[in-house]
Amino acid sequence: MPKNSKHSPEEALGLERIVFFSDAVMAIAITLLAIDIRIPEIEPSVAAMELPGQLAAITPNLLTFFISFIVIGIYWISHHRYFSYIKRYDTRLILLNLMFLFFIACMPFVASLLGRFPSVPIALVIYTLAVAALGASMALIWRYASKGHRLVESHLDAGTIRIINMRLFVAPLMFVMAVPFAFISTFAVIVVWWLSPLAVILATQLWARK
Amino acid sequence: MPKNSKHSPEEALGLERIVFFSDAVMAIAITLLAIDIRIPEIEPSVAAMELPGQLAAITPNLLTFFISFIVIGIYWISHHRYFSYIKRYDTRLILLNLMFLFFIACMPFVASLLGRFPSVPIALVIYTLAVAALGASMALIWRYASKGHRLVESHLDAGTIRIINMRLFVAPLMFVMAVPFAFISTFAVIVVWWLSPLAVILATQLWARK
Amino acid sequence: MPKNSKHSPEEALGLERIVFFSDAVMAIAITLLAIDIRIPEIEPSVAAMELPGQLAAITPNLLTFFISFIVIGIYWISHHRYFSYIKRYDTRLILLNLMFLFFIACMPFVASLLGRFPSVPIALVIYTLAVAALGASMALIWRYASKGHRLVESHLDAGTIRIINMRLFVAPLMFVMAVPFAFISTFAVIVVWWLSPLAVILATQLWARK
Amino acid sequence: MPKNSKHSPEEALGLERIVFFSDAVMAIAITLLAIDIRIPEIEPSVAAMELPGQLAAITPNLLTFFISFIVIGIYWISHHRYFSYIKRYDTRLILLNLMFLFFIACMPFVASLLGRFPSVPIALVIYTLAVAALGASMALIWRYASKGHRLVESHLDAGTIRIINMRLFVAPLMFVMAVPFAFISTFAVIVVWWLSPLAVILATQLWARK
Repeated sequence: MPKNSKHSPEEALGLERIVFFSDAVMAIAITLLAIDIRIPEIEPSVAAMELPGQLAAITPNLLTFFISFIVIGIYWISHHRYFSYIKRYDTRLILLNLMFLFFIACMPFVASLLGRFPSVPIALVIYTLAVAALGASMALIWRYASKGHRLVESHLDAGTIRIINMRLFVAPLMFVMAVPFAFISTFAVIVVWWLSPLAVILATQLWARK
Repeated sequence: MPKNSKHSPEEALGLERIVFFSDAVMAIAITLLAIDIRIPEIEPSVAAMELPGQLAAITPNLLTFFISFIVIGIYWISHHRYFSYIKRYDTRLILLNLMFLFFIACMPFVASLLGRFPSVPIALVIYTLAVAALGASMALIWRYASKGHRLVESHLDAGTIRIINMRLFVAPLMFVMAVPFAFISTFAVIVVWWLSPLAVILATQLWARK
Repeated sequence: MPKNSKHSPEEALGLERIVFFSDAVMAIAITLLAIDIRIPEIEPSVAAMELPGQLAAITPNLLTFFISFIVIGIYWISHHRYFSYIKRYDTRLILLNLMFLFFIACMPFVASLLGRFPSVPIALVIYTLAVAALGASMALIWRYASKGHRLVESHLDAGTIRIINMRLFVAPLMFVMAVPFAFISTFAVIVVWWLSPLAVILATQLWARK
Repeated sequence: MPKNSKHSPEEALGLERIVFFSDAVMAIAITLLAIDIRIPEIEPSVAAMELPGQLAAITPNLLTFFISFIVIGIYWISHHRYFSYIKRYDTRLILLNLMFLFFIACMPFVASLLGRFPSVPIALVIYTLAVAALGASMALIWRYASKGHRLVESHLDAGTIRIINMRLFVAPLMFVMAVPFAFISTFAVIVVWWLSPLAVILATQLWARK
């Protein structure tokens, strides 16, 4: 464990347990995503002939698994990156982090729901809002921890703090904006989803030019 | 790992493994809570029309998931907070901690049971007793570790030890008291559940005035 | 991490990852034990009346969950205790440890099998042999690591090594001896199971007197 | 944590979290392999007579569980061994590692599929390709990290780097070569699978003689 004059060893250990617990929850959720994909039920005598078709029928489940793996993967990277700046903790940070983990724990359920009903608007809306809530929780964690250098390194650059803040809020905003498209088509929603990383990059570029 | 003159590095490593194992069990249980929520089975042709109604029908499961997430979350915070005072361990502490983890491992099952039968007295009684047993285990861990500063820091304030003791016993007591209300209505039980944090705060205040 | 002149920091980190991976597998298996207990399927209108009876019907599942939790708990304690003496590792230790984890990973399946068919001899035999294999793996890990102080602290007492060796082999031996009783009755097998800790204590006592 | 002048303590902690998250995902996947093995459904009255036959019928599931446990076990050992040489990390290493974890997370699904349809070519092809992709990801991690000593210890021998590179690519290559055999018979595929460790050993020997 790195020695750091800003916090006592006890605090470092406490922070490590928070990070560890979060890693464990994210690892379980990301691995459980695939568990709910149903193996087709086919009579052995016709299995060789019917299995390819049955597997094609669960393509939406496989795609949702893949997309959700990327979503949790991206937020694990965010958590990994931004918690490396956080050096102290308090009860509110723990509560915000539990809120983040709540939406992580929701992912296998909302992913299964979308995989089973990929073209039903309410399934698309629930999935999109769950991802938006996940992103918003991460943004709130950062906002709370970084405001006035509350829990981050005191020498952390104010510009860096603001860019991270902006980046973390753009992604959930894009997801909220994708909600009305759920009533048009699944394809439209997916287009807006994929635009969100582009929006993050664009917003970062514009911000940097200012 | 923090250096500490009160215990050898081997003991610190052993204690870290206990904490780590507990975190892993709590992380798994909290993530598995959502796994058992059933995706409704609907024919694709009527899915768009029937899914909202079917999702409304699983509201009790979603609520139980949410409540159970809070329960495990609260006890994770307790475990995190009170184990930060514990500096040594013995076999009895390990056994009490395994008892605590046993009731953590029961949560996904009792939550599923309550989610499926939210108005059946026996499901309410089982859930309430499981949470009470979880709380009582945490209280016993603290009582055992703190008595005569058995396993905690020797300079830990006796008043702090007593307040934690009292707090940890009030919550499971409230849950036991909620049991008879299960035979009146689900709503009555939930009211008593939500009163338990208030009781903890009230008891702490009264204690402090003494 | 404890400083130790017997091994380089890299080796300590490698050993920590082995212990960590084992803890994670044991934590998952112990929590998954309860996941497979089926919630009874009852029509809502008769749920209040029929649920107590249906829960009584899954008593074998609940008992098997409880026994299996104790089994994994005991072997977690063993792993925790005996790995605290192990200071180095090689590929063979990793392979023996993976064998141990294989039988840990089998526990949820064999427990479900026994819970569903508590009075069928083959289910009893499979469960008993799985627990025996788990115990034998732990015994082999210790035997390999401690022989000639291969991987343990060089100042570890030879008497202690022998007592641990003997203890770890008595438990799986008792379980193997319980196998024929599976063809008499479930109750007979359970009696032999519960005698195994007594046998361990007795053997330790006799050994100490020698 | 080992002190090392090549990287700051923050970097060491960041690397530890990557390794930890990977361990947790592998631990969950390896334990979930057995979860999907179905307990046979038999009427209690005929259970004693029919259970042995029903268990014989799930032999393919048990074998696939066993083979997949070995596959994940081998790649855990690889990850453990080769990450011990890696001392720094960047975003690309994290992404390659997430790709590796994606195929780890796929294992319970592809193993279930093969266990249910052991003689259907497409199930064999999917399983074989999933293991090949897992191996290729590990090989890419090493290639990326070791090229020009990008992320590994600067004093690591160039010959060692090349041997590891070669070893890690031979295994997935053998699995890709096993694909056409899926259209002949399950047995032919399994023979090619088991030849892959021999190919790794042979290739290493030939390389060493050069």
